[in-house]
Amino acid sequence: MSKRKIEVCFSTTLFPFFKNDNAHVVVVDVLRSTSAICAAFANGAIEVIPVPTVEEAKAYKDKGYLVAAERDGLKLDFADFGNSPFNFTPNSVGGKVLAYSTTNGTSAITNASGLSVSIGSFLNLTAIAKWLIDQNEGDLTVLCSGWKGKFCMEDSLFAGALCEILLAHPDFYTKCDSVNASLELWHNAKQNMPLFFDKIAQRHRLKKMGLDDVIEYCFTRDSTNIVPLYKNAKIAPFKL
Amino acid sequence: MSKRKIEVCFSTTLFPFFKNDNAHVVVVDVLRSTSAICAAFANGAIEVIPVPTVEEAKAYKDKGYLVAAERDGLKLDFADFGNSPFNFTPNSVGGKVLAYSTTNGTSAITNASGLSVSIGSFLNLTAIAKWLIDQNEGDLTVLCSGWKGKFCMEDSLFAGALCEILLAHPDFYTKCDSVNASLELWHNAKQNMPLFFDKIAQRHRLKKMGLDDVIEYCFTRDSTNIVPLYKNAKIAPFKL
Repeated sequence: MSKRKIEVCFSTTLFPFFKNDNAHVVVVDVLRSTSAICAAFANGAIEVIPVPTVEEAKAYKDKGYLVAAERDGLKLDFADFGNSPFNFTPNSVGGKVLAYSTTNGTSAITNASGLSVSIGSFLNLTAIAKWLIDQNEGDLTVLCSGWKGKFCMEDSLFAGALCEILLAHPDFYTKCDSVNASLELWHNAKQNMPLFFDKIAQRHRLKKMGLDDVIEYCFTRDSTNIVPLYKNAKIAPFKL
Repeated sequence: MSKRKIEVCFSTTLFPFFKNDNAHVVVVDVLRSTSAICAAFANGAIEVIPVPTVEEAKAYKDKGYLVAAERDGLKLDFADFGNSPFNFTPNSVGGKVLAYSTTNGTSAITNASGLSVSIGSFLNLTAIAKWLIDQNEGDLTVLCSGWKGKFCMEDSLFAGALCEILLAHPDFYTKCDSVNASLELWHNAKQNMPLFFDKIAQRHRLKKMGLDDVIEYCFTRDSTNIVPLYKNAKIAPFKL
């Protein structure tokens, strides 16, 4: 078996430069959409449909779907929920299909259409690492959703945490500067996570709107062993 | 006076997301083009014309200009020099105008056309920081050339080093994740620079071609007090 290459892409804007048909893509948007998707499946959702535009989200609502949709942190008026993982309780999503549209995360997911794609967050970090190792072949691109096309800190920290686990395994290697940068950032952050929260612009944006209650939750590791897999325009849970 | 905002843009691809008419832009390509431009001026060049395409570089050669041009590290056959700062000796560039075309750096410079632009590298780090402080107003975007559209480690280290100096000054502030990430990376790197060289993909690319003799030179601080300024499609030296 040939060694498996890892790369990190710091924003959806840069994704065209990471063309690799042999790579599985882990999409991450720590604050908050991929954390919320993991929470939804942990609480019994049976399917999540990522929807890039507001218009499409509205159309799903009109068709009777349960819809979670936000822009810039705020719930859209027609939606049932915004983007907080705390919305996705067993009561609200258990046994249901959810259409989901967010500022950054859902476009990142649909950007990777046609490739093998999973959904990562700190909530399922160990599970997704184990699942990737179990695949036994193929490269890996960690696709950070970023913030409106740019780099964001929190997604690169997840990338660093995931790469740290995988690169300790003999199957994986990297030559990617973004992987090395993510490892450095994660190394610094994990020593004092609450102190590091201050360096995350999205934390301050959420705080201004009173929506930063989710920060600690979104950085808590391994609350679920579900790996959400994106295929045929839908995300379904795979339980390890 | 209002406080001056600092942002870091990790690659030319992301530059459209950093629109700010009030910002001065420092362009950096540590390995090797902005280091080489600083070396050229330190050794007496009177003007550098950044040229984005190979065809334009060839046209300058045909017009009798001294031409430095490389792609992927290798000198183009028609050019007088490649991209190593060691080419730009007092003998070769003293009193001359140089047309210059490189894989990443020169496009980054011309991308910022129309804005106030300077050329940064570790060679003129303290000088450019002092010059920026002396301007007394305006925001700052550090534009990292990156590698073929992607993030690269070495330019973000320069960004971190420059932001560290400026943010110690009361006029400047940041809310930018890329600034915070650059500061973290620089913090880790400066403790043991030679060890950190190993985490830089471009170092390995240059090594393969026997061109990595410049690494230490390009990370040596403050060998010149010249700030190259880009205006009207030309770069001219400003001596502090």
